[in-house]
Amino acid sequence: MKALVYASPGKKEVREVEKPRIINDSDAIIKLTKTTICGTDLHILGGDVPACKEGTILGHEGIGIVEEVGSGVKNFKVGDKVIISCVTACGTCDYCKTGLYAHCKDGGWILGHLINGTQAEYVHIPHADNSLYHIPKGMSDDAAVMISDILPTGFEIGVLNGQVSPGDTIAIVGAGPIGMSVLLTSQFYSPSTIIMVDLDENRLKESKRFGATHTIISKDGDAAIKEILEITGGRGVDVAIEAVGYPATFDICQKILAPGGHLANVGVHGKPVDLQLQDLWIRNVTITTGLVSTNTIPMLLKTLVNGKIQIEELVTHNFTFDNIIEAYDTFKSAAKEKALKIIIDFK
Amino acid sequence: MKALVYASPGKKEVREVEKPRIINDSDAIIKLTKTTICGTDLHILGGDVPACKEGTILGHEGIGIVEEVGSGVKNFKVGDKVIISCVTACGTCDYCKTGLYAHCKDGGWILGHLINGTQAEYVHIPHADNSLYHIPKGMSDDAAVMISDILPTGFEIGVLNGQVSPGDTIAIVGAGPIGMSVLLTSQFYSPSTIIMVDLDENRLKESKRFGATHTIISKDGDAAIKEILEITGGRGVDVAIEAVGYPATFDICQKILAPGGHLANVGVHGKPVDLQLQDLWIRNVTITTGLVSTNTIPMLLKTLVNGKIQIEELVTHNFTFDNIIEAYDTFKSAAKEKALKIIIDFK
Repeated sequence: MKALVYASPGKKEVREVEKPRIINDSDAIIKLTKTTICGTDLHILGGDVPACKEGTILGHEGIGIVEEVGSGVKNFKVGDKVIISCVTACGTCDYCKTGLYAHCKDGGWILGHLINGTQAEYVHIPHADNSLYHIPKGMSDDAAVMISDILPTGFEIGVLNGQVSPGDTIAIVGAGPIGMSVLLTSQFYSPSTIIMVDLDENRLKESKRFGATHTIISKDGDAAIKEILEITGGRGVDVAIEAVGYPATFDICQKILAPGGHLANVGVHGKPVDLQLQDLWIRNVTITTGLVSTNTIPMLLKTLVNGKIQIEELVTHNFTFDNIIEAYDTFKSAAKEKALKIIIDFK
Repeated sequence: MKALVYASPGKKEVREVEKPRIINDSDAIIKLTKTTICGTDLHILGGDVPACKEGTILGHEGIGIVEEVGSGVKNFKVGDKVIISCVTACGTCDYCKTGLYAHCKDGGWILGHLINGTQAEYVHIPHADNSLYHIPKGMSDDAAVMISDILPTGFEIGVLNGQVSPGDTIAIVGAGPIGMSVLLTSQFYSPSTIIMVDLDENRLKESKRFGATHTIISKDGDAAIKEILEITGGRGVDVAIEAVGYPATFDICQKILAPGGHLANVGVHGKPVDLQLQDLWIRNVTITTGLVSTNTIPMLLKTLVNGKIQIEELVTHNFTFDNIIEAYDTFKSAAKEKALKIIIDFK
């Protein structure tokens, strides 16, 4: 089969590799129909994720058709249309028992990281009963692909960790796919003011369409902080959501918090940040971090089926797997290409 | 009357000053019977709290007898024995309505900071109905003094923010009065392992008496981290409580957290800390900060009255107000003097 492989730092290659096989009773093999590219894939290619060995097939998002199941798989049969969760969960370890699938002792985020991923014609999924979800009838394929990672990540690590509540003033720093997913799902909880912050005017314009009440260009961090404080009458925001992963964007978040506020970090960070504890110790703030557990997928599917949110609108570009290198190029120049999520079709 | 005044950075003086008077209907005047010294008083004297003006009477803890009340005070009358909360609360602003008295728009921590404090023969207490508490019958005066600040601070900002739960492994970094207060009140929630970390062997020995299951000398931060990880089988602690206020002690806390763990910062910090977000972004941790609201005082009083904890055992030294300068000297050399809390008697 064909697969996109992490060849060496900075280098990816489409290679002809062996089709995966069932190893354990609880495994499934999925024939991919659609996949997508995540910022994390770029991190791996950049050499920032040393645990990912050269030769690993990239990708941790996608949908497909069940090709084969192990004898222990109860919830899926050959031919089922499924969403692949970016997080694999055994369902029986201490972490799984508290719903923290992200830290499953025999799973977590391993797809396209510690084991072969979804940017291939077929993928091997361990613990299929806890790591796959049926695509509900009537749901578009594009929407379903967003369920693998970005929708639950924005919701669990941004909205739930940030404890967005009715009437809140919230700021989302970063209007990429994850920030947009936070923007959409935050509205489940009826915040009164949603301030979207980004460097890119096009993305800010899009965010207005998705429900942002205010947008702020963040070229100058201090000016952005000042503007946000002005919008909130000097008080600060109830929830600040970091959806980028840089010290500068984290810094905006920590400086706009109202007393009692929450800072939910969603961004993937590569270095330490200066936490302004000399100011924050007295302000009764809560800072959270997290990798998605995807255990909200059943709930999120219901919100999509009943039309609460239109997550498929985040899809801006379509490619076929034959053109996956070009798809990566487009995704790497996302602002210039006006790209949010890119769908890669196996046809 | 006599009062201890913040004269200038580094300098305090006992001065003869005017006795306070009722200003607003909701005020009370309290004749102090006992007060104590807090680490924060030393911060003020060190010039670290610029909002505190020279000439302010120090102190935000103490008990006394109601000397006079304004016409609007409903819950207290002349002669009542009362505990003074370190936090003043109007009870009617937005913050008070959510229980966040720490950020009361007409109060918060103002005693011995923005208005005259409790290290004086008399003190003026605004919003008396929300800022004073009756001393229950049978409670010792020493225990009552601990209710002004350190007991609720350890409980609210350490134990409640840290979400200590049955079976948890917790580490308390700092075995001073606040750390000890966390140690005592954490046991309301039955953690299975309590690791106490400090530089001082005497304090660690005392902490064993108060319920610590393990003690660790933290002269070498990396060695302490290693030892804590070993105790937890490499997993880390469910809750780390920072009760010192230095980058080095915060650093221990952030490096011993299990996935899903909580770091409750109680210490007063004077500078930023390096938050290791490149490691923590993926670990689903929660970091909290806070100034006490003291709205758990009614609940804490019940735990003291029924003997759940013996907070008065934190009192190691007694002085009279005539010797308050000497009391400060002892408190400043707390480790050498084997001092935890120092009671100052007005006799």
